[in-house]
Amino acid sequence: MTPILLNCMGSEHNEFIKQHVQVNNPYLEGMEEDILYHFSLSNRTHNLPEMFGDIKFVCVGGSANRMKAFAQFIHQELQLPGNPKEITDICEGTDRYCMYKVGPVLSISHGMGVPSISIMLHELIKLLHHAQSRDVVVFRLGTSGGVGLAPGTVVITDKAVDYSFRAQFEQVVLGKVITRSTELDEGVASELLQCSSELQNIPSVIGNTMCTSDFYEGQGRLDGALCSFSRAEKLEYLRKAYEAGVRNIEMESTVFAAMCRVCGLKAAVICVTLLNRFDGDQITSTHDVLTEYQQRPQVLVSHFIKKRLGLIV
Amino acid sequence: MTPILLNCMGSEHNEFIKQHVQVNNPYLEGMEEDILYHFSLSNRTHNLPEMFGDIKFVCVGGSANRMKAFAQFIHQELQLPGNPKEITDICEGTDRYCMYKVGPVLSISHGMGVPSISIMLHELIKLLHHAQSRDVVVFRLGTSGGVGLAPGTVVITDKAVDYSFRAQFEQVVLGKVITRSTELDEGVASELLQCSSELQNIPSVIGNTMCTSDFYEGQGRLDGALCSFSRAEKLEYLRKAYEAGVRNIEMESTVFAAMCRVCGLKAAVICVTLLNRFDGDQITSTHDVLTEYQQRPQVLVSHFIKKRLGLIV
Repeated sequence: MTPILLNCMGSEHNEFIKQHVQVNNPYLEGMEEDILYHFSLSNRTHNLPEMFGDIKFVCVGGSANRMKAFAQFIHQELQLPGNPKEITDICEGTDRYCMYKVGPVLSISHGMGVPSISIMLHELIKLLHHAQSRDVVVFRLGTSGGVGLAPGTVVITDKAVDYSFRAQFEQVVLGKVITRSTELDEGVASELLQCSSELQNIPSVIGNTMCTSDFYEGQGRLDGALCSFSRAEKLEYLRKAYEAGVRNIEMESTVFAAMCRVCGLKAAVICVTLLNRFDGDQITSTHDVLTEYQQRPQVLVSHFIKKRLGLIV
Repeated sequence: MTPILLNCMGSEHNEFIKQHVQVNNPYLEGMEEDILYHFSLSNRTHNLPEMFGDIKFVCVGGSANRMKAFAQFIHQELQLPGNPKEITDICEGTDRYCMYKVGPVLSISHGMGVPSISIMLHELIKLLHHAQSRDVVVFRLGTSGGVGLAPGTVVITDKAVDYSFRAQFEQVVLGKVITRSTELDEGVASELLQCSSELQNIPSVIGNTMCTSDFYEGQGRLDGALCSFSRAEKLEYLRKAYEAGVRNIEMESTVFAAMCRVCGLKAAVICVTLLNRFDGDQITSTHDVLTEYQQRPQVLVSHFIKKRLGLIV
């Protein structure tokens, strides 16, 4: 083989690697079967390439009901045949997560918090790897507390940051802490912001998103079972967060950004704010208002997908 | 008032405090309404003392289906009137958690991981406080990976330990890390071990339980999307855990122990092991075997509750 051919193959190989979902585990290839336990799927009992090989967009969110509603919504938006009400949960063998496939879109719930989404991401990345899916973009569509923003604002995440406003995720591996970058795809974020400008009633900003390990003490709420700080200390912490570019607070973005990055998946986090944390801690809006807010990231990502698929010019 | 009377009142007051669920938040009493957002309940829209004042046993576990099954099981065990199949989810307004009340027993799901159970515990503790519940014991009934135990063994937790085998939980409060003890109630653990000896086919041990932030890298699994260590390094970590008294690994026990302790709730963790991690990482047992294993903590806790209620002498 000539050096020229070798170069060609090398470049094609790099392109292949770039497009495919990369697992970083030398042990996987040697396994006779890979049971994706929390999805109740396996690469021996299910034909994963046939089931998932055409996936281009993965949308994940905390609530099972919300991700089912999103699947039904995107079914209508893509004008696919069949009754959107009749979509079935691919993970019906377990209640850990739910999963719906709608054309090239996969909609999955991940529960609340870093550990819960982390299990889902390990199994999702292996699923996409086994399925030989290519050019996949992953979106987290969530809810959050806003920092200095009107409720209902959609935050497209620039950097996912930890409780000290650092763009990093600390992962424990065999009892040792390692650090991973939490940078997200800038191109996808810009494209999403452009989409928001083409839509009515989806006020959107790009900003940093703080990811915490709990909803109460870690986010400076005064309404938990435990609270050892004053209102002034809470507001001081939120002010520092705002100065560090934080515009919203949620509980999954750092590990989501870190794992997608390590595995070569383009990723974006799009969360609507349910309240402005400078004004309070409790979520007091009516059910109808909250429902409309939660549709905003869905409408935005649907618009992005339709543009990418050429359904909107 | 004489010093003697003062002493009496002080002692009674201490007893009152000991029996009641203690919130540690001076702001709560001043709130006009307390919305328990993730339960879809509030102390203004619901009569919490009427609904929950008689609760004596709270049983929590990750899976919504499992905690519904437990509610139906304990309904039969306590020989309560009505059809166990017709129990209704008190949290039906949300899909974050499910909750069933069966006589003096509350059965609640908490999802996977420390953040998810932590949100539930904040709202549970506030609920029990608003309801003026007294003398409550809280049990976590879970699944886990065993360390040097045959699959199906029930581990009653002595100490919940972190990834470095320390009996502590690190909580971030306004960007600062504080440490809380994770000791559980020794008396309840001994009573549970005694119960296991009175039952057939519930092999049980008391041991330490390691709580991790993820299922794959943090637990030394070789079958995740990411794996940067060797089989030998994995086994070495598990061996060190075993030497530190760890007999199983799960993902919620440290924050469960820490929060119950701070709030004066007697608590126990009872998890069945689904595999022996020295032998592998994947959960390969059949559905029927796993279902039977998962009933073991339920049978054990049911026996404990029936003894406490005087239904078994």
